[in-house]
Amino acid sequence: MLKERFDHLRADGALVHNITNYVTVNDVANVLLACGGSPIMADDIDDAPEITAICGGLAINIGTLNKNTIPSMFAAGKKANELGHKVLLDPVGAGASTIRTQTAYKLMDEIHFDAIRGNISEIKTLATGEGTTKGVDADVADAVTEETLEQTIEFAKAFAAKTGSIIAITGAIDLVADESKCYVIRNGRPEMGLITGTGCQLSALMCAFLVANPEEPLEAAAAAVCAMGLAGEIAYARLEEGDGNATYRNKIIDAIYNMDGAQLEEGAKYEIR
Amino acid sequence: MLKERFDHLRADGALVHNITNYVTVNDVANVLLACGGSPIMADDIDDAPEITAICGGLAINIGTLNKNTIPSMFAAGKKANELGHKVLLDPVGAGASTIRTQTAYKLMDEIHFDAIRGNISEIKTLATGEGTTKGVDADVADAVTEETLEQTIEFAKAFAAKTGSIIAITGAIDLVADESKCYVIRNGRPEMGLITGTGCQLSALMCAFLVANPEEPLEAAAAAVCAMGLAGEIAYARLEEGDGNATYRNKIIDAIYNMDGAQLEEGAKYEIR
Amino acid sequence: MLKERFDHLRADGALVHNITNYVTVNDVANVLLACGGSPIMADDIDDAPEITAICGGLAINIGTLNKNTIPSMFAAGKKANELGHKVLLDPVGAGASTIRTQTAYKLMDEIHFDAIRGNISEIKTLATGEGTTKGVDADVADAVTEETLEQTIEFAKAFAAKTGSIIAITGAIDLVADESKCYVIRNGRPEMGLITGTGCQLSALMCAFLVANPEEPLEAAAAAVCAMGLAGEIAYARLEEGDGNATYRNKIIDAIYNMDGAQLEEGAKYEIR
Repeated sequence: MLKERFDHLRADGALVHNITNYVTVNDVANVLLACGGSPIMADDIDDAPEITAICGGLAINIGTLNKNTIPSMFAAGKKANELGHKVLLDPVGAGASTIRTQTAYKLMDEIHFDAIRGNISEIKTLATGEGTTKGVDADVADAVTEETLEQTIEFAKAFAAKTGSIIAITGAIDLVADESKCYVIRNGRPEMGLITGTGCQLSALMCAFLVANPEEPLEAAAAAVCAMGLAGEIAYARLEEGDGNATYRNKIIDAIYNMDGAQLEEGAKYEIR
Repeated sequence: MLKERFDHLRADGALVHNITNYVTVNDVANVLLACGGSPIMADDIDDAPEITAICGGLAINIGTLNKNTIPSMFAAGKKANELGHKVLLDPVGAGASTIRTQTAYKLMDEIHFDAIRGNISEIKTLATGEGTTKGVDADVADAVTEETLEQTIEFAKAFAAKTGSIIAITGAIDLVADESKCYVIRNGRPEMGLITGTGCQLSALMCAFLVANPEEPLEAAAAAVCAMGLAGEIAYARLEEGDGNATYRNKIIDAIYNMDGAQLEEGAKYEIR
Repeated sequence: MLKERFDHLRADGALVHNITNYVTVNDVANVLLACGGSPIMADDIDDAPEITAICGGLAINIGTLNKNTIPSMFAAGKKANELGHKVLLDPVGAGASTIRTQTAYKLMDEIHFDAIRGNISEIKTLATGEGTTKGVDADVADAVTEETLEQTIEFAKAFAAKTGSIIAITGAIDLVADESKCYVIRNGRPEMGLITGTGCQLSALMCAFLVANPEEPLEAAAAAVCAMGLAGEIAYARLEEGDGNATYRNKIIDAIYNMDGAQLEEGAKYEIR
């Protein structure tokens, strides 16, 4: 039941350490507060492992990675693994440049991730080295459609089996898979793609859900995806004439702020395959 | 009279150099513009001291400190001291990691701060080494309540006497103290704690008030705290059904934008002890 | 016709690489999405040139330059020049510190910019070494007024001739000039100056317009300036009592999101001199 996943997060909170990009970091912090979690950002090598140690989860996002923050990602990731904390990877722009792709590979080699969330191009790059990317957005050629759904589900399950991570591929249709089960989620609005950082926000949110639901990681990850998509629907319905992507961004975070487990349960649109 | 403190800021402006975290920096810049001040951000060692020299005040915030920006904090702080500019410290997360705590201590050793603003856990850490922190938020065990108010006032005055700085401890009840006088402020809303960066914004605002009111620093610092809390009340009253922390964030800055000295005077809730 | 300039951008998109400051970067990303473009941010020396290679344009903004990002600006700029991509410079705070001024000079020496956009103080600094700055805002003494308009147009044309760049000087009156022609634009609202980053947003928007209109660069740059100013007018008309600069910021991006070529054509206020 997705309801319990959100209820646990609201009840227990979740302190999430984010090593993330500076583009969307403010929205990431606010969405974590909105969902009942707490954010902390620390990306210096002398700060990150110690901050990780006091948190319940770590979300690594390579959106503006650099030579100072990359070592911090490894150090914090290893510390989090040692302590049994939840760790999530958002491989922003993997496939768009060598350093992004190589860093994502190396992170996956040296750190166990409880979940990896990206668009289809990024996840394909990690799994096969063959994704294409249009900057940080998924290539249209890669899109998950009704036609490619079956094979993408198999792909997600296989990659989950190989990595031991929950694999979340988000786009028009969202998939959240472990090796044997895949949530196919149809919440959300296409206009969310015209806001910077909805993916980054979802990754942080997913990390918070994982922290608060250690026994049910797959359902927790799926609940986060449903919550974000549902927030996009609720916020869209609240837009007024003349509103655009900036106001929509705020209203999505507002919708998370006002959401509870019962609303999530009722609004979630998914099937399990 | 708090009115004059805001009137001076509106009349004279205040150019504030911020070496601050990348999480909340945009809101910090907008709140400075909202109050009648002007922001400038510069954190490279080759840039920061020169930028400080053309400003009236410097706000140092260690929220995402790193090995490049820490030396800039020292260099800019010393330059600001030399020039007699106002300098404020926001020790974000002091107590949460060694580098944050040690950097805050060392900054206090080498730089004179006109004001230090933090939550009770951070300020206790600076004063006694004994604060506990829940990431960047105050620990509940540390909270300033009616029961602990008297002793916290004494603590704030003693720490102000020791440092020669105005000490601002903000939370459910806010305290702004010098060695002999303490403003006890009851403006604000608990929901402000669910927005990232209201503390960072307040620190920048306080620095602007200090710059514009060099003769009345304690009252200026208290006026900033009242203004931020009052803005939280005004903004809260303007929220509509379905609004959450993202919209609330914007409306708080909007409330500062529309506030004047007379409104502050009328809405401020404080006593002096 | 400005209409075609925006129509082309909406039809073709424009992937813009931004090496920019962390203060206003989120708004920059959202305004690029709002106008039909796509943003990507990358500022590490190992990432920036490769990211530039997959984009159509590069916008360099020195607002929070540092010793890690400065070499990336040069490397990405040279790569973009090699590939014939559009490159824009926003010399934030040139004149306010030596490193800002010197970096801007050196960038102009080593990289060809299709356009340079700044306030009058910044552009004067680049052209003559004699601008004065009030932090990152233009000095009042430098303001472009009806009295100084004629000579400022000549100045802009001369600087455009010298640099081979389109020169955009924005303020109360905006000028967009090449060596022989100058758009004098009277869109916009003074209240836009009380929002952080409207200049940064405009620079990114201008880069997107240039990418989508390679044959008509001057008109494309002017169209971006008109669009931003018109968005400021539309958003201002949508403000409600109690709204301030934070809400205004969102509504400006919203107005770009909802704008099309026909609306731009109708609302643009300019003459060509």
